[in-house]
Amino acid sequence: MREFDLVVRGGTVVTAAQTMDCDVGIVDGKVAALMAGLPPGRAEVDATGRLVLPGGVEAHCHIEQKSSFGLMTSDDFYSATVSAAFGGNTTVLPFAAQHRGQSLLEVVEDYERRAGEKAVIDYSYHLIVSDPTEAVLNDELPALIRRGLTSFKVYTTYDLLKLDDYQILEVLAVARREGALVMVHAENHEMIRWLTERLLARGHVAPRYHGIGHSRLAEGEATSRVISLSELLDVPLLVVHVSCRHATEAIRDAQTRGLRIYGETCPQYLFLTLEDLDRAGMDGAMYCCSPPPRDAESQAAIWNGLQNGTFQVFSSDHAPYAFDETAKLAAGPDAPFHKIANGLPGIELRMPLLFSEGVRKGRIDLQRFVELTSTNAARLYGLFPRKGTIAIGGDADLAIWEPEKRVEVQWELLHDRVGYTPYAGRQLTGWPTTVVNRGRVVVDGGRLLAERGSGRFVPRGSSSFARPRGVALRELDETRNFGAALLD
Amino acid sequence: MREFDLVVRGGTVVTAAQTMDCDVGIVDGKVAALMAGLPPGRAEVDATGRLVLPGGVEAHCHIEQKSSFGLMTSDDFYSATVSAAFGGNTTVLPFAAQHRGQSLLEVVEDYERRAGEKAVIDYSYHLIVSDPTEAVLNDELPALIRRGLTSFKVYTTYDLLKLDDYQILEVLAVARREGALVMVHAENHEMIRWLTERLLARGHVAPRYHGIGHSRLAEGEATSRVISLSELLDVPLLVVHVSCRHATEAIRDAQTRGLRIYGETCPQYLFLTLEDLDRAGMDGAMYCCSPPPRDAESQAAIWNGLQNGTFQVFSSDHAPYAFDETAKLAAGPDAPFHKIANGLPGIELRMPLLFSEGVRKGRIDLQRFVELTSTNAARLYGLFPRKGTIAIGGDADLAIWEPEKRVEVQWELLHDRVGYTPYAGRQLTGWPTTVVNRGRVVVDGGRLLAERGSGRFVPRGSSSFARPRGVALRELDETRNFGAALLD
Amino acid sequence: MREFDLVVRGGTVVTAAQTMDCDVGIVDGKVAALMAGLPPGRAEVDATGRLVLPGGVEAHCHIEQKSSFGLMTSDDFYSATVSAAFGGNTTVLPFAAQHRGQSLLEVVEDYERRAGEKAVIDYSYHLIVSDPTEAVLNDELPALIRRGLTSFKVYTTYDLLKLDDYQILEVLAVARREGALVMVHAENHEMIRWLTERLLARGHVAPRYHGIGHSRLAEGEATSRVISLSELLDVPLLVVHVSCRHATEAIRDAQTRGLRIYGETCPQYLFLTLEDLDRAGMDGAMYCCSPPPRDAESQAAIWNGLQNGTFQVFSSDHAPYAFDETAKLAAGPDAPFHKIANGLPGIELRMPLLFSEGVRKGRIDLQRFVELTSTNAARLYGLFPRKGTIAIGGDADLAIWEPEKRVEVQWELLHDRVGYTPYAGRQLTGWPTTVVNRGRVVVDGGRLLAERGSGRFVPRGSSSFARPRGVALRELDETRNFGAALLD
Amino acid sequence: MREFDLVVRGGTVVTAAQTMDCDVGIVDGKVAALMAGLPPGRAEVDATGRLVLPGGVEAHCHIEQKSSFGLMTSDDFYSATVSAAFGGNTTVLPFAAQHRGQSLLEVVEDYERRAGEKAVIDYSYHLIVSDPTEAVLNDELPALIRRGLTSFKVYTTYDLLKLDDYQILEVLAVARREGALVMVHAENHEMIRWLTERLLARGHVAPRYHGIGHSRLAEGEATSRVISLSELLDVPLLVVHVSCRHATEAIRDAQTRGLRIYGETCPQYLFLTLEDLDRAGMDGAMYCCSPPPRDAESQAAIWNGLQNGTFQVFSSDHAPYAFDETAKLAAGPDAPFHKIANGLPGIELRMPLLFSEGVRKGRIDLQRFVELTSTNAARLYGLFPRKGTIAIGGDADLAIWEPEKRVEVQWELLHDRVGYTPYAGRQLTGWPTTVVNRGRVVVDGGRLLAERGSGRFVPRGSSSFARPRGVALRELDETRNFGAALLD
Repeated sequence: MREFDLVVRGGTVVTAAQTMDCDVGIVDGKVAALMAGLPPGRAEVDATGRLVLPGGVEAHCHIEQKSSFGLMTSDDFYSATVSAAFGGNTTVLPFAAQHRGQSLLEVVEDYERRAGEKAVIDYSYHLIVSDPTEAVLNDELPALIRRGLTSFKVYTTYDLLKLDDYQILEVLAVARREGALVMVHAENHEMIRWLTERLLARGHVAPRYHGIGHSRLAEGEATSRVISLSELLDVPLLVVHVSCRHATEAIRDAQTRGLRIYGETCPQYLFLTLEDLDRAGMDGAMYCCSPPPRDAESQAAIWNGLQNGTFQVFSSDHAPYAFDETAKLAAGPDAPFHKIANGLPGIELRMPLLFSEGVRKGRIDLQRFVELTSTNAARLYGLFPRKGTIAIGGDADLAIWEPEKRVEVQWELLHDRVGYTPYAGRQLTGWPTTVVNRGRVVVDGGRLLAERGSGRFVPRGSSSFARPRGVALRELDETRNFGAALLD
Repeated sequence: MREFDLVVRGGTVVTAAQTMDCDVGIVDGKVAALMAGLPPGRAEVDATGRLVLPGGVEAHCHIEQKSSFGLMTSDDFYSATVSAAFGGNTTVLPFAAQHRGQSLLEVVEDYERRAGEKAVIDYSYHLIVSDPTEAVLNDELPALIRRGLTSFKVYTTYDLLKLDDYQILEVLAVARREGALVMVHAENHEMIRWLTERLLARGHVAPRYHGIGHSRLAEGEATSRVISLSELLDVPLLVVHVSCRHATEAIRDAQTRGLRIYGETCPQYLFLTLEDLDRAGMDGAMYCCSPPPRDAESQAAIWNGLQNGTFQVFSSDHAPYAFDETAKLAAGPDAPFHKIANGLPGIELRMPLLFSEGVRKGRIDLQRFVELTSTNAARLYGLFPRKGTIAIGGDADLAIWEPEKRVEVQWELLHDRVGYTPYAGRQLTGWPTTVVNRGRVVVDGGRLLAERGSGRFVPRGSSSFARPRGVALRELDETRNFGAALLD
Repeated sequence: MREFDLVVRGGTVVTAAQTMDCDVGIVDGKVAALMAGLPPGRAEVDATGRLVLPGGVEAHCHIEQKSSFGLMTSDDFYSATVSAAFGGNTTVLPFAAQHRGQSLLEVVEDYERRAGEKAVIDYSYHLIVSDPTEAVLNDELPALIRRGLTSFKVYTTYDLLKLDDYQILEVLAVARREGALVMVHAENHEMIRWLTERLLARGHVAPRYHGIGHSRLAEGEATSRVISLSELLDVPLLVVHVSCRHATEAIRDAQTRGLRIYGETCPQYLFLTLEDLDRAGMDGAMYCCSPPPRDAESQAAIWNGLQNGTFQVFSSDHAPYAFDETAKLAAGPDAPFHKIANGLPGIELRMPLLFSEGVRKGRIDLQRFVELTSTNAARLYGLFPRKGTIAIGGDADLAIWEPEKRVEVQWELLHDRVGYTPYAGRQLTGWPTTVVNRGRVVVDGGRLLAERGSGRFVPRGSSSFARPRGVALRELDETRNFGAALLD
Repeated sequence: MREFDLVVRGGTVVTAAQTMDCDVGIVDGKVAALMAGLPPGRAEVDATGRLVLPGGVEAHCHIEQKSSFGLMTSDDFYSATVSAAFGGNTTVLPFAAQHRGQSLLEVVEDYERRAGEKAVIDYSYHLIVSDPTEAVLNDELPALIRRGLTSFKVYTTYDLLKLDDYQILEVLAVARREGALVMVHAENHEMIRWLTERLLARGHVAPRYHGIGHSRLAEGEATSRVISLSELLDVPLLVVHVSCRHATEAIRDAQTRGLRIYGETCPQYLFLTLEDLDRAGMDGAMYCCSPPPRDAESQAAIWNGLQNGTFQVFSSDHAPYAFDETAKLAAGPDAPFHKIANGLPGIELRMPLLFSEGVRKGRIDLQRFVELTSTNAARLYGLFPRKGTIAIGGDADLAIWEPEKRVEVQWELLHDRVGYTPYAGRQLTGWPTTVVNRGRVVVDGGRLLAERGSGRFVPRGSSSFARPRGVALRELDETRNFGAALLD
């Protein structure tokens, strides 16, 4: 038996299906053995009394991304992946965002150039499609899928990003044909615009009105609508960052009817509310994101969706904007709500928050935690079985948790460049104290051990959740799913 | 006691709330007395053995309307109102249709000029708003509402008619402020466009593909969406010509939740199916309308909605296009499906069809028949209590039915100028053999007794169904119905 | 024209379908003419400025009824019908209650003997079936239906009244075959028993625990269950005194699916809550009824059900027990909650409460008020068109309202023998100041004008809502509704 | 490193969370190592080209069980466990069935005596509680739970088994307090009884009428009812052998609302229909079970529930009755349907049927297959992590499948004593050709290698799915879940 490069010894190994006391032997960055009492490795991690979990797959984050109107996130690929690693992640899936008029191929090359030299953990990209030209639909997307970029995101809102329903159908048709997965930011643009204009006209400019302009009815409506588009073409679809009961119910109902609709939610919808947007002065701006945090009823609906399987993934939607004129307040220190940069940091706290409030408080068990933070993202986005679990032959991506460690959240403990955290002051129990990516110890005992640029791009296959149905589509049902039939 | 101008003697008088054997005494065009054994009037109608019902209020019909691309309906105000009268109607509510760039005030004047000189029964107009400019929203609509035109129709589809969600919100806001009712043609334009383009690209040009391109998913989606728009502003809304289970369920669900959402359906969704669009040659074109006839499951859903109260009105959507190059086939004898003029005749058969299949076959009772064909339309559209029932002081608008009369439908029996009827060959039981409008006998024993131009424009008040809620809106619930709050 | 016995002059006549200004001419106890400017009658009522509504049909009340364990209600047929008359009612439908071992025929004779000599307004009985023996099912019920007693009530709870599901099916089968309507008191007996035993075991004996033992889950469960029994036999059914969201949703869902399920609610579920049961000392006992008053969320659900058509009737469930040792507290001044006589008075306030809070506050309109308090009860229970509306040839049953009259509720204003009212102190607007039954003025200006025993038994026909479906049952669908098929 | 007792070499190891190519090293009956290229073991299984899955946990089967009226199943613990093993199972959970008047402790001892000497694979029992006396509730059930029998089954139907709702609440209360899981056979007894009596009275005695008497409305009703009972006490509950849309929807709805309701289904509801009960002569009797097989719509609903997570377990409900006078036809060769022994064999085909129709036809993936046939049953019933997956330290229970093996089902291939199979003639792809239980090869290449009595009783812990909620019950909500509060 060949010597192990690394042995993680004495821990309790947890996957989405099991919990077992054993060592993990690693060779060439892969898990090579699961066994109690492995022989000494060339290096060792003592995991005694700790939980050895699959490294997190952070499936929704904005890194070194320039917005449509030119604003750059405060984190670059270095700081974001360092922060992610300290939070227990071993893979990140940020966005390569097309602006209108751009070639997606060039967009990806640009991101790849920047990510490759900075990332400290593994990564791939979702493609944001804001300009689905013939070239993009027929040439670029298929080419990029072949290069392992198998997921696209589309928006139903934001002036410079939104697609109309026809364009979304076009993107869904490509996804169906080529085996990719489409993610949707679902809010009704016109409802938000109508509300925003009237709020501004009445002088309601404070950050809290961001939360009012982005009505949950707008989110519910757009969610229902994109589900209908998906149903027309019989193609899977994931609704990202669900915040409220309305959208949760629409997704649940689609699943009940047998549609392949998936849902994602984020910490801000479990732990923040509109009250946070109403903090004194401009402090509310620190909590502005879209959809906005809602209320206690919404939080209960989201927890319920995490428990009963409505949501498959729990992501951070890390959108790191420093609370200053370079980012959040680029439009001025008193910017009206619709000029405040949209987004919250969260890449480092995503897993600790869910571990503490979910697992430790008994709302979900460890298996569900692993599913929500790692396994399902890997399966949804074509990283499986290489990522997302602890399996022989898979990448040795591990987050080793001290389940009893108590931490009071302060931004100073974190490793992003945002300058604040929406979760400051919160008491958490449980923390990932050692993180291993492809066999490399990237974080241990509070220290970063990985070098800049040591992360790797990971080409992805088709989504496990988006493969064609095994059973033949029911015979041409012309008034129902002729949309799908037209694609076959 | 003043002598009656007319006494309808010996019939069984039926309203939405009761059935009673008595005479109807009429003075100055109004119902003046309900009583058995009235003294002789200056004129008499013998209604012995017949049912005396409120005259029908045909609330959805296209008369002498030029389409956005210039096609004129085959019926003008004379032939359409004659046909309506023979079918038991005493009031019609066709559309005054704005084309983009037009002043609504001028549109109404144009319709009024033509209707005034031709109509044989009473009438008003719904306003089709296709270009909600500032002037239209702020000046014209309020002015027209004050002149008694208290209902607008908007479209979510058709290139030259459709409004986007923002525009629909603008129209709804006017309706809420001014007390008008908005009707919506709800089909998702982009879904239909996507399907249509692909059908045509594959050479699927026959009439039946009209039914496939107008997917029921498109109707369901748009119905759900406009309900969300209505909910945002807490304003009533009526979805017209509902054809399928998807839309019916969306409406029902809104009603269950307490929203003031109303629904209309039409004979074509009870009695025709996609099979009719698939008739030999171009004959299917005779059945092309939007939404299209569906299938047996849909018919059952529509009947159920008529029975359990989901639908408030049953209209014809009479859109009379002769089956020739002047109308249906203006784009040529082999026109592809998307070039076929959209619409079916039905103004004369609406009530006999529902009477025969609904009342006579026991699916609905006479009270519900009266509600669906007359009372509710009058209440919805601000004609109540002047129209829509048989009440002292109300207009003497009566349809006197022979409930046992058997008729085999043939176009030759009808009085429109369309040249065919989709219901040819059908056996019906029950027919309105005498029709009285404002005390004038307009139809009797198969003869027209009314003169051209003898109908009157009827100014309308606010919808009984759209008045502000009596109870104060719940305290400002900012994330839920702030839209409504912004309007108060 | 024959002289009128009575003319009600100058009022605004309201029915479920219309509102009209006219006089009402009455001959031989029937409405003979509706007309403005009728000639003088032998008697006249000046209704100027008042609303002339159909007299109320109180469809759920317990009068001179002895409970299974021997307790007699505090009102007899005299005091109850006097109180009803002062509250605007012209017909009452109390129960003729079978105790186990009794012949239903004898029960009815006993009630008839007592009612005939005391009632001041018209009446009939619903039959409470607590012992569905072969004789009852095969002989007595059919005989009583032929004598005009066309509605039965069954209970799912109370030791001495409850039927099991098999027995309910037996009663439903009779109702289907003979054209009667079954009413159900729906609460799960075993859930209530289980809770009650545990509450008592823990010393929770105060009146408020009545509200806790009668869990809304118990009501929701039993409602769903009896709907399934009805569905099995395809027979209509009415759920009485619905108090909560759970049961309302079950009924609404059945209606949505097309089942002929009807619902009734009562004032106590709109205006009282569990807080009332928690009043100081034993005062809570005054609010003990089953189902018990719930909470604000339930009240909102019930109002919604009144507005959207889920409920067809609004009754009092008048169960008059004086608050003393003769009735409410027969088991002692400190009786534990399960020994407190169940029921509230309400026969006189039912209509004023709904008029004031419903019509005057804009929650429902006058037409819906008339439907809920009179027309629908008459239709449901086979009194139509004789009762329940104002129609030529129908009984002259009128409640003439002063819509602006302001009244502060105090028991001293009322005419029952209960000694308290649960609604004391409430400010109401609108009151029925003159009441006419079969042409007799029974109440006017606060005085009773009718003689003891002047009310009449009214034989009833089949329910308008329970007639066989007109369309043939779908062909034998053996796994679905074979239950119904077995009855055909 | 200690030598392995057995190495399963070269296979593809599949768990509910992953698929990996590696060897499995086994020591002392436990999985000791997962690794590619393990050193030689003392014994070896060559799994090249095969799938190594967790051994099946058959969670619903009747073995050597005497019915309430004395009929013994045709399989004893030997033949049933042999048949189970050949079908890929390594654990069975049959019932220890109390008849009324019996002590549960004695019942268990009796089963243990018989099982211990015959079973060839591991086993435990669910306890059937038909007589929940004080002694049973307070003493026997707690004692048996402590001995590792942590699941009970109750019936809502069958004269000699059914509990009423009060008794079910009593059993649920014990389960909540002691951490056990209650399974329910949910059919409304009285509906079935009513239908059965009428069918028999009309001479409908053939086997097909069994399917009609057991209406799906009866199943839907009882399912909804037991969910309400569970909700009252806030305690988990599993509905077994769900056959139709009605029950599936009730379960799904409860899950959507956040209740801990679980569901099980069986092969007969995917692969058989009422048509099978209608086979010639008495052959239909071979398909009589309760609930009965339904129709294609039901099958689609059940498949959907397997795909979308409504069902957690897929069991056989093996109830082996030979088709002769000793069993199925004990009441005679022409027994009327209600006298035919209820139940179908299926223990050996459960997994092959689902593998072939589910996995091979693309309806579910391998991970879901493992969940449904092994992992979830182990978690539900307190066998986890010892059973139900392939994990270090867990029992070495493996089913090694040839995924391409084609088999035509014939009873002669099977190992039960029933004499027929309902699935005869069906073509399957994929078969478990080697089965390992606690490291012992029990089946290999069509041969049985295990000795009679070599199976072991496995004491079970609390259900992973029934542990108390981690978050404190919401504050005493007295009208909602006071039932639960009374238990705390």
